[in-house]
Amino acid sequence: MSDVILQRLAEVLEQRKQADPDTSYVASLYHKGLDAILKKIGEEATETVIAAKGGDIDQLVYETADLWFHTLVLLAHQGVGPDKVLSELERRFGLSGIEEKAARGRT
Amino acid sequence: MSDVILQRLAEVLEQRKQADPDTSYVASLYHKGLDAILKKIGEEATETVIAAKGGDIDQLVYETADLWFHTLVLLAHQGVGPDKVLSELERRFGLSGIEEKAARGRT
Amino acid sequence: MSDVILQRLAEVLEQRKQADPDTSYVASLYHKGLDAILKKIGEEATETVIAAKGGDIDQLVYETADLWFHTLVLLAHQGVGPDKVLSELERRFGLSGIEEKAARGRT
Amino acid sequence: MSDVILQRLAEVLEQRKQADPDTSYVASLYHKGLDAILKKIGEEATETVIAAKGGDIDQLVYETADLWFHTLVLLAHQGVGPDKVLSELERRFGLSGIEEKAARGRT
Repeated sequence: MSDVILQRLAEVLEQRKQADPDTSYVASLYHKGLDAILKKIGEEATETVIAAKGGDIDQLVYETADLWFHTLVLLAHQGVGPDKVLSELERRFGLSGIEEKAARGRT
Repeated sequence: MSDVILQRLAEVLEQRKQADPDTSYVASLYHKGLDAILKKIGEEATETVIAAKGGDIDQLVYETADLWFHTLVLLAHQGVGPDKVLSELERRFGLSGIEEKAARGRT
Repeated sequence: MSDVILQRLAEVLEQRKQADPDTSYVASLYHKGLDAILKKIGEEATETVIAAKGGDIDQLVYETADLWFHTLVLLAHQGVGPDKVLSELERRFGLSGIEEKAARGRT
Repeated sequence: MSDVILQRLAEVLEQRKQADPDTSYVASLYHKGLDAILKKIGEEATETVIAAKGGDIDQLVYETADLWFHTLVLLAHQGVGPDKVLSELERRFGLSGIEEKAARGRT
């Protein structure tokens, strides 16, 4: 499995901008606006913390998926894709370089 | 650019388990333990909310990267990879099916 | 107006432990348990942040009231009153001493 | 002990507006501005959640005090006192009425 999933999910979220708020959860979030989406970020982050403290890995995975999902909805609402975030992660942590060094046993 | 970045970042985070807490930020988080990592989740989620309200897209991307990064640290600390979260997202939102329908103009 | 309100509110929250979860919001939170109460803490904290960024003072007061209220529910659920928190604040910030110094213009 | 503590603490926080950011923690928060204060709200709310899940009552009291303290700093920074929040709590939960009913055994 490849994690091209984020990009595909972002495309779906983009399409949801044309969907009906009454039948699509994502469209209903867009319709409620930025504050409603941000409330979900806070809510899901807290649920991730609670799940981690609870010690159930499946629950942690579930809540982290919820958190990532709502950050993707936020990004889509603000007109930016997950590739920008991934690039920032790549830039910041210099993955190529780090991996290269790791491969040579020097990390 | 492909978002295989999350997987590569996860590998780096795995390697950091052998790193020195005095020289590696991630190793220092592992060393401080779960609660310290969870505090960062709450902190970065709040900073994402603040950035979004501030309206600066670059800042939003930066803070979202911080949030994703610390969730990856959390997952690594709990012994689970981002592929589990990506699978959950794929499962939950049935991406293949949705895309297929979208391609046929029925979403 | 005096802020003996927190104490009186705490008494009401104590009484709600005998109330019916179907008719009392607080009793329903107790019934759902600790995690449900903690989710509300995270939710209301985020709403406080959003309200502050929005710049509407009435909204900020409203959301802060929500946040304090749910921390009181949390304390009640854990069997501790707001007086413990107020004592901690008094102890930590040495209010008497600080006020005394302030009165003498030396703060 | 009476919980007039919040009012007295609010007065101290008001005085801190004239204090030196280099020697006063509160003055340094004012100086950094709204976003820095809001980050603390998110941070302390998360620490309250973590403490509650940890099950240590003293830690919960400590973190709740931190959370309340930083909401008071936020209110002071926005030019509003805790009495507004307490009035909102009183109004919303109709404490006098509820207590009256409770006294008559009808709650």
